[in-house]
Amino acid sequence: MVHGGAGDLARLADPAQAPPYLHALRAVLDLGRGLLQAGGHALDVVEACTRVLEDDPLFNAGRGAVLDREGGVALDAGIMDGRDLRLGAVAAVRRIANPVSLARKVLESGSHVFLVAGGALRFARELGMAEVAEHELVTPERQAEHRRVCAGAEPAEQGTVGCVARDRHGHLAAATSTGGLVCKGPGRVGDSPVAGAGVWADDETCAVSCSGRGEDLLRVGLARTAAHALMHGGMDPGVAVQVAVDHLRRRVAGAGGLILIDRGGRCACAYTTPRMLRGWIEHGGEVVCRI
Amino acid sequence: MVHGGAGDLARLADPAQAPPYLHALRAVLDLGRGLLQAGGHALDVVEACTRVLEDDPLFNAGRGAVLDREGGVALDAGIMDGRDLRLGAVAAVRRIANPVSLARKVLESGSHVFLVAGGALRFARELGMAEVAEHELVTPERQAEHRRVCAGAEPAEQGTVGCVARDRHGHLAAATSTGGLVCKGPGRVGDSPVAGAGVWADDETCAVSCSGRGEDLLRVGLARTAAHALMHGGMDPGVAVQVAVDHLRRRVAGAGGLILIDRGGRCACAYTTPRMLRGWIEHGGEVVCRI
Repeated sequence: MVHGGAGDLARLADPAQAPPYLHALRAVLDLGRGLLQAGGHALDVVEACTRVLEDDPLFNAGRGAVLDREGGVALDAGIMDGRDLRLGAVAAVRRIANPVSLARKVLESGSHVFLVAGGALRFARELGMAEVAEHELVTPERQAEHRRVCAGAEPAEQGTVGCVARDRHGHLAAATSTGGLVCKGPGRVGDSPVAGAGVWADDETCAVSCSGRGEDLLRVGLARTAAHALMHGGMDPGVAVQVAVDHLRRRVAGAGGLILIDRGGRCACAYTTPRMLRGWIEHGGEVVCRI
Repeated sequence: MVHGGAGDLARLADPAQAPPYLHALRAVLDLGRGLLQAGGHALDVVEACTRVLEDDPLFNAGRGAVLDREGGVALDAGIMDGRDLRLGAVAAVRRIANPVSLARKVLESGSHVFLVAGGALRFARELGMAEVAEHELVTPERQAEHRRVCAGAEPAEQGTVGCVARDRHGHLAAATSTGGLVCKGPGRVGDSPVAGAGVWADDETCAVSCSGRGEDLLRVGLARTAAHALMHGGMDPGVAVQVAVDHLRRRVAGAGGLILIDRGGRCACAYTTPRMLRGWIEHGGEVVCRI
């Protein structure tokens, strides 16, 4: 299951604008299906699928990420392995085109699990990971949006990306990647890299990826709320995501949503925002995409 | 309820070494009692108590924090208000003597909730918060420890500090502050500033502050595990903390512990480490401190 963000997504209310987004999700779901059918591990699959969405300038992650207050690109990503709760996260990192893969390297490092800002970039350099110039991640659309929001316009769109998967061994994994908020202040971290807030995977319950106003999602710990609702709500994924977004609305009047796959491979999604772009393949069936 | 860290704390096995630590906790508990009796809000009380522990060079937070790989001091802190789940967190921030108060300013900013590294310092500067030279936070004991650990010795001690409180209005709050791991890499973030991992407060359940090997605590989301165990385990605080550390041990063979105060003002503590330094006042009774 993948998502391309929860938010106003006003442009996607126009049927003429939606096809490229839906096409992108379908392509990623086809990629994920192929990898899983070939015996791929859930952790590898969520990383591979999230990379494709990071590379796609339509989404607010990697190339095409929103610009911060100073017009730069600072990225957050988290990835989690449901087998053993291994975790890797990076936040406020610059010059890295695929932060989800840097987060994966942190996960594999076996030492730290969460690296930020210049420290995350230094870790990437120590690994010899390719760096890009910050402007290579910037699109004209994001520059125009940055000008509008800095001039006082309401920041409308979220395009955080995320992926959750269950592999043939029954293992779960989740990944979330984002550029965060338009015109965010320096060093701002949202929910995406934070386990329990924007990303969570535990083979005993489910894998979750979230999107929305990161501050709201951090305050309620949205992903973990859903995982607990699943555990204590009869293991019904549809109920779990609904409980989670009801909690988000009730406690912090929060804007956001989540995708969830449970240990049985059942998919669910809920959101408090006008729209959430998501797609899924349940039990090897048809590709379904919704806005 | 306050703590001064979970860990090996080998020096505290020597009865001759323990009195200054116990005295420090007692003084902080007396301070907290006075503030609460005067009608203080839980959020103010946990900030005030945590500041005192940050200022005390005995503990790994603020002055007396452990040194990172390069011999510098990078601090993490988080604070949370159980009334409305408002949250403030800073991580990998330098030159700030009381990161819990910077986290409190983030909480009050109403915009972002989590700021890291240079961005957190810039936010402090925009507020006109006092800065200190990094060496002012460094003690000779931490320099000696840094030399030993860089030379290959096992890093033995944790001295993270934290505080949870319930005020006369029944509101809960929690704060956690730390220098993290000795010889940690640049940009490393542990559990302390992460809501759901090292800090959590929700009037509907409890307030929690944790300490231990931050990576382990992030992977399981220790604070939130306890809050959920409380909600689904008959609201018994002693059971909740035990369930949480059992989960920590079972899933990640983790080293750590937590203090918890529930909405009824009952206190509990559990840990998987040899020792945890903590003290509490339950229902306005006697001060109790334990190692």
